[in-house]
Amino acid sequence: MSRLRPPPRHVVDRVLGTALEEDLGGVGDVTTSAVIPEDSATTGDVVARGEGVIAGLEIALRTFELVGGPVAVETVVDDGQTVRAGSIVASVNGSTWAILTGERTCLNILGHLSGIATATAQMVAAVAHTNARIVDTRKTTPGLRAVEKYAVRVGGAANHRYGLHDAVLIKDNHLAVAGDLAKAITMARSRVGHMVKVEVEVETMEQLVAAVEAGVDAVLLDNMTTAQLEAAVAFVDGRCLTEASGGITAGTVAAVAETGVDLISVGWITHSAPRLDLALDLHRS
Amino acid sequence: MSRLRPPPRHVVDRVLGTALEEDLGGVGDVTTSAVIPEDSATTGDVVARGEGVIAGLEIALRTFELVGGPVAVETVVDDGQTVRAGSIVASVNGSTWAILTGERTCLNILGHLSGIATATAQMVAAVAHTNARIVDTRKTTPGLRAVEKYAVRVGGAANHRYGLHDAVLIKDNHLAVAGDLAKAITMARSRVGHMVKVEVEVETMEQLVAAVEAGVDAVLLDNMTTAQLEAAVAFVDGRCLTEASGGITAGTVAAVAETGVDLISVGWITHSAPRLDLALDLHRS
Amino acid sequence: MSRLRPPPRHVVDRVLGTALEEDLGGVGDVTTSAVIPEDSATTGDVVARGEGVIAGLEIALRTFELVGGPVAVETVVDDGQTVRAGSIVASVNGSTWAILTGERTCLNILGHLSGIATATAQMVAAVAHTNARIVDTRKTTPGLRAVEKYAVRVGGAANHRYGLHDAVLIKDNHLAVAGDLAKAITMARSRVGHMVKVEVEVETMEQLVAAVEAGVDAVLLDNMTTAQLEAAVAFVDGRCLTEASGGITAGTVAAVAETGVDLISVGWITHSAPRLDLALDLHRS
Amino acid sequence: MSRLRPPPRHVVDRVLGTALEEDLGGVGDVTTSAVIPEDSATTGDVVARGEGVIAGLEIALRTFELVGGPVAVETVVDDGQTVRAGSIVASVNGSTWAILTGERTCLNILGHLSGIATATAQMVAAVAHTNARIVDTRKTTPGLRAVEKYAVRVGGAANHRYGLHDAVLIKDNHLAVAGDLAKAITMARSRVGHMVKVEVEVETMEQLVAAVEAGVDAVLLDNMTTAQLEAAVAFVDGRCLTEASGGITAGTVAAVAETGVDLISVGWITHSAPRLDLALDLHRS
Amino acid sequence: MSRLRPPPRHVVDRVLGTALEEDLGGVGDVTTSAVIPEDSATTGDVVARGEGVIAGLEIALRTFELVGGPVAVETVVDDGQTVRAGSIVASVNGSTWAILTGERTCLNILGHLSGIATATAQMVAAVAHTNARIVDTRKTTPGLRAVEKYAVRVGGAANHRYGLHDAVLIKDNHLAVAGDLAKAITMARSRVGHMVKVEVEVETMEQLVAAVEAGVDAVLLDNMTTAQLEAAVAFVDGRCLTEASGGITAGTVAAVAETGVDLISVGWITHSAPRLDLALDLHRS
Amino acid sequence: MSRLRPPPRHVVDRVLGTALEEDLGGVGDVTTSAVIPEDSATTGDVVARGEGVIAGLEIALRTFELVGGPVAVETVVDDGQTVRAGSIVASVNGSTWAILTGERTCLNILGHLSGIATATAQMVAAVAHTNARIVDTRKTTPGLRAVEKYAVRVGGAANHRYGLHDAVLIKDNHLAVAGDLAKAITMARSRVGHMVKVEVEVETMEQLVAAVEAGVDAVLLDNMTTAQLEAAVAFVDGRCLTEASGGITAGTVAAVAETGVDLISVGWITHSAPRLDLALDLHRS
Repeated sequence: MSRLRPPPRHVVDRVLGTALEEDLGGVGDVTTSAVIPEDSATTGDVVARGEGVIAGLEIALRTFELVGGPVAVETVVDDGQTVRAGSIVASVNGSTWAILTGERTCLNILGHLSGIATATAQMVAAVAHTNARIVDTRKTTPGLRAVEKYAVRVGGAANHRYGLHDAVLIKDNHLAVAGDLAKAITMARSRVGHMVKVEVEVETMEQLVAAVEAGVDAVLLDNMTTAQLEAAVAFVDGRCLTEASGGITAGTVAAVAETGVDLISVGWITHSAPRLDLALDLHRS
Repeated sequence: MSRLRPPPRHVVDRVLGTALEEDLGGVGDVTTSAVIPEDSATTGDVVARGEGVIAGLEIALRTFELVGGPVAVETVVDDGQTVRAGSIVASVNGSTWAILTGERTCLNILGHLSGIATATAQMVAAVAHTNARIVDTRKTTPGLRAVEKYAVRVGGAANHRYGLHDAVLIKDNHLAVAGDLAKAITMARSRVGHMVKVEVEVETMEQLVAAVEAGVDAVLLDNMTTAQLEAAVAFVDGRCLTEASGGITAGTVAAVAETGVDLISVGWITHSAPRLDLALDLHRS
Repeated sequence: MSRLRPPPRHVVDRVLGTALEEDLGGVGDVTTSAVIPEDSATTGDVVARGEGVIAGLEIALRTFELVGGPVAVETVVDDGQTVRAGSIVASVNGSTWAILTGERTCLNILGHLSGIATATAQMVAAVAHTNARIVDTRKTTPGLRAVEKYAVRVGGAANHRYGLHDAVLIKDNHLAVAGDLAKAITMARSRVGHMVKVEVEVETMEQLVAAVEAGVDAVLLDNMTTAQLEAAVAFVDGRCLTEASGGITAGTVAAVAETGVDLISVGWITHSAPRLDLALDLHRS
Repeated sequence: MSRLRPPPRHVVDRVLGTALEEDLGGVGDVTTSAVIPEDSATTGDVVARGEGVIAGLEIALRTFELVGGPVAVETVVDDGQTVRAGSIVASVNGSTWAILTGERTCLNILGHLSGIATATAQMVAAVAHTNARIVDTRKTTPGLRAVEKYAVRVGGAANHRYGLHDAVLIKDNHLAVAGDLAKAITMARSRVGHMVKVEVEVETMEQLVAAVEAGVDAVLLDNMTTAQLEAAVAFVDGRCLTEASGGITAGTVAAVAETGVDLISVGWITHSAPRLDLALDLHRS
Repeated sequence: MSRLRPPPRHVVDRVLGTALEEDLGGVGDVTTSAVIPEDSATTGDVVARGEGVIAGLEIALRTFELVGGPVAVETVVDDGQTVRAGSIVASVNGSTWAILTGERTCLNILGHLSGIATATAQMVAAVAHTNARIVDTRKTTPGLRAVEKYAVRVGGAANHRYGLHDAVLIKDNHLAVAGDLAKAITMARSRVGHMVKVEVEVETMEQLVAAVEAGVDAVLLDNMTTAQLEAAVAFVDGRCLTEASGGITAGTVAAVAETGVDLISVGWITHSAPRLDLALDLHRS
Repeated sequence: MSRLRPPPRHVVDRVLGTALEEDLGGVGDVTTSAVIPEDSATTGDVVARGEGVIAGLEIALRTFELVGGPVAVETVVDDGQTVRAGSIVASVNGSTWAILTGERTCLNILGHLSGIATATAQMVAAVAHTNARIVDTRKTTPGLRAVEKYAVRVGGAANHRYGLHDAVLIKDNHLAVAGDLAKAITMARSRVGHMVKVEVEVETMEQLVAAVEAGVDAVLLDNMTTAQLEAAVAFVDGRCLTEASGGITAGTVAAVAETGVDLISVGWITHSAPRLDLALDLHRS
């Protein structure tokens, strides 16, 4: 299968541009500018300090271009590959000013996205013996949804809807106000286009019956026991997709997957995955 | 002591505005718009689902204003207060459209910042019996440095420099190129203004001696054993600040603090703190 | 059915803000500023000069707020209502400076969106005796997709996908490169999340058979005769949605709808609909 | 005469950038990314599907650069040339990912601007036997004024003022408030610089006399019959420019021009010109 | 005559917003936040420390709104009024946090614009006994053209063209390339609309003759002696406007004006006018 | 000493981009576009018309890249070098369209920054026989702080704090509200990080004693006589830095420096320095 495509250029440049603005302010890198001569050139490696799945390497290396280079970059691994502590991930070669000024921004985004891919890959591996698919949520870091959802894909999982705009998901809070589940589904169908899918969160068997009869594309089974999930899956019997969610961890995900649900959504992989530790090691001249 | 002041308005609105743009796209919240009438009003509570320190409440609630309201918000706790699972953090009252459309953006930022404050407070508590001060690093999430550093302050720690622009920190990579530590410090002093402090990372006792003699404001003691830290603190003897760093965790921080260092910098509190779980519970009508 | 919800605030303000910037430049409205005193107040009406369906009234009137007001606005009709030449659409009352400076920007967006709603409503009416639904395309005016797709909804039609990002549509150009239709559908399914629908453009009966067997959500029947459309609809027999497209006009749309297709996509309603003529008539004092 | 110069780079990039953002969102082109390999290269032609005047070709082709290329483009015709159905307008050669992702944005702007140039050229041709010059209005599409006014120039007509900021045009609504026409002209002259021209809309012969005596640069003769226009032109007798306006169409413009007016302003060419149909045809490999 | 209208809201907010961003960064006003309690309220006056003409008061006071207030402001003088050292210009009353945080941004813009108005008023006064009008140039501070040209108007002078886009001015560098002056004027006329004026810089009597015969709206007489200016004015004899320019100072402007030229353009009033000294004096509690 | 590093790319491009937008608007350079053929190429020199110190040359020449080139530029002098009337500063060679369209923006920023460097160098020279260092203030032009502070460095002086965010400076207005100076210093120390310096403005010997005892990094001695400054310096005796400020001019700065103060801050060098006169001379073909 060919390589996954990173988010559009304008998204990547907005993320990196904002990061560079907060790191450089109006003055720039006062340390490097003071202690390193302008014409200094250097080489170095981006090196993993822990084990994990790399994600966002092309994105992270673009930092050096935005800083103003010239810096030549070479990737040693591709997004999706697993590295160990000590693995060289990429090499840089060029202006010392540009390399040191961009170092932290490059590592911050790469460590963050690789942390997400690593956490995702752990969940994916845990359910590999089943047909369940791990999916993400909208519990992403403000401003980073596009790149975080890319990291989830790199980690081997799939994306749930991107935002409030591209799919219908009727949740408990909607039903707290709207009341009738079947009517809400009907209203949603009549308001959205034919390319928009409709999912509904159900908490009881009655709601599940109503949802399936109303013809939803998927049901979100929130905070159910594995027994409840099995019963739900049996009732649905392929008439729509079934998604389990609610505090599922690396420890519990296999049991959930074994209930036969189609999808398992996990907020933790985007909102709480620890960063993969990476560093830039310059070659001493 | 009076309340800490959140970051400037333009920063908060940029963070929330970007988050709303990625969640709403060009179409907006298709679910709420379809199943809830425009004139529906509702009330609800932001409720903690776990224990932690709240940070960013005023920031998070501004979401509803940016969505277009009208939503009245009332805070029940202040930034810096500890809550438990079930604690009500704030109440909202107003347009159901605005409340449900802003819900996830509000919770994402609040959970992220409260997670950082919670992690920070744990580190701060662990060194409370010493004079050591916990400080953050530049290992922040791209685009969120200002609000994350605010959450660190809310958690009881102090901020290290904001970025590359407001203080000098001569690190190993600078010395790999610049060579001579004493000369680098002299160059830095001659290039920056009188309001800019100068810190240098040292790995050996020779470097420490040179740094202190060159009159730095602080020395960064990276990845040293507690014995090495004690020796360094003894040598410095108050002539400059001493900062320990390098993979310090909640389990090791107390021992590090007991070496007598002035500052302990911890990247983990900003780059890997798990989110505090929070939810919006609408009152069923 | 409750009122349709306009696009998010940030979209509306970007559209109007850009329009005001191009009309006002750095100097502003030199005519009004020169010939009208600052404290002058006036009243006036937005009046239709032709027959059509109003769309974007709330959006257009926000212009006066962005100009800096104060201007009180009152809507006389709602989006979706049909007006005739001479109908009063809204009234304004306030600062003459603000009203005259915002006039053209307000009318330009209102006339443009109402023109689209009017054209759309004509197409919708022409197929009202069938089950076919009119849908739009991505042939929108650069920068205005969100508001134009809103106008299409106001006109009674539905939106096709918003952009390249929220649904899969495999077209002739994809197949020119990818070659095998069935394989392309399989690849698409494996790459996108469960909330993303997949449609494919077919030109021959062989492609149609392959598409339906591959389990697409919809087939795009491009530039087919009504006989071909009928055959396709008969073959599909409800296994997926059928969409006709290709140069369909007000004159031909009824015949297309009568073939039994589910959807008819029309680019003309967004890319070539003539503007609805509207004016602002101030009350002479 | 040398080629007309397109609008400044920052305008073109703002227009295209906004269009790409709405088409690509945070995810990008999910179809192309899924079904086409990253290293696929292709060639194709931008082909006219109808007859018209090309405008904005250089602008439209820049899309592929902003998408991230690499795509080599070659123009076959220049802005201002007339093409027929089947004419090749330009060729593209490069990354299939970039070509298919940029296709719709490229065609949307090219079709829109060429539609305006085509409509304009029709009006210009209809008055070619007179000395009258066709000019545009401020009835442009929000956000596209700069490129639309460029398309008008390509079509052979001239631009009226760009916005409210660069020329004085005292209209009926100003006079409804200001009252005295002569006084308004005097106020305008005293307030604006020597490089700003002053035009006034007149509805009666009395107003025309007053305007000419006050020394305006041009008079706008709104909604007058051809007899009234002839009388006005005769009275003015070259003392200022005369401009006819008000619902003038391709059918009526020649008669208006034959009255001897200097200028005929037509809103239709920018607000309602139908798009020129264009397509991108990839070469089947 | 009624008050001059400041530049559009979007311009003012861009200028102030950028200034606040550079002053506040991501952290804000660390001094005020640390030493003043959040609920502190105060009052104070904006006071002149020197004599001059106030310009930009409404613009400058908007700073406190953008900072986030609440601060009530009251103007004591209007733009265009002359103040002396000690004169109170405006009063503020509200949140101490907002007042002290906005203080410098408010004073910087007010002092800069008032400095320009003061310098302009000196030039205007020096030619008051003649019919010559002082005008500005494009030698403005990057980013501040709109507000600086407003300050010039407040100072009693008029604006030359706003930028390269709204009027033709054929200068020596154009002629160095284009060669023939008369042909250049003809080309310009044929390319620009009827609302755009054409001026040409002339250095010799031959050029002046050619320019007047070609029917320009104005001639720019650059770096001429007063004798040369008198000869030029005599030759032109009212057939177009005459503008003197080139290093004209407060000491020489009267003599230049007495040559009978219509306009005198002075770059110094925008690029080198010293700031008017102003301060914010808080009332001691 | 190696060359000073200009502000970050994003700052330079924001400054130049805004300047180009105000000069070019939506239409661009109507004069050059009309009278010069597209394929015209030319060469020319940026030439000083007065004596001064060049600052911002690399920044200014980037204008031609942003305009869209192609223009080759070559610098003849470096930032910090003194030029005389007639000195060639840089040469340009390329598209006449790009050169003439960028000319004014290039010269405006270069003249402004060189004016600041020139004024700064005069102050620096006047104190060269002492140990006093000239520093700037926050009295900068809105939007230009980063580049103006760079020009100050080029002129040989040092920067005071960049903004309100990167250092504490407790001024008279803070003390008017906070009351107790020593308590304010303590509060500031406890609120800011270890990399932030604290300075306090003192007006009396009592305040000076309190400030030094509280351990500030620097004291700001505002509007003191030289006798008072000498007494203050004697009292401080090296325990912190001493800074003189308040209306210090080229005429008085030497006397102030001779009092022994460490720093002299001068607002005039950024807010009122006259522009260095520069021009672009094209080579006549």
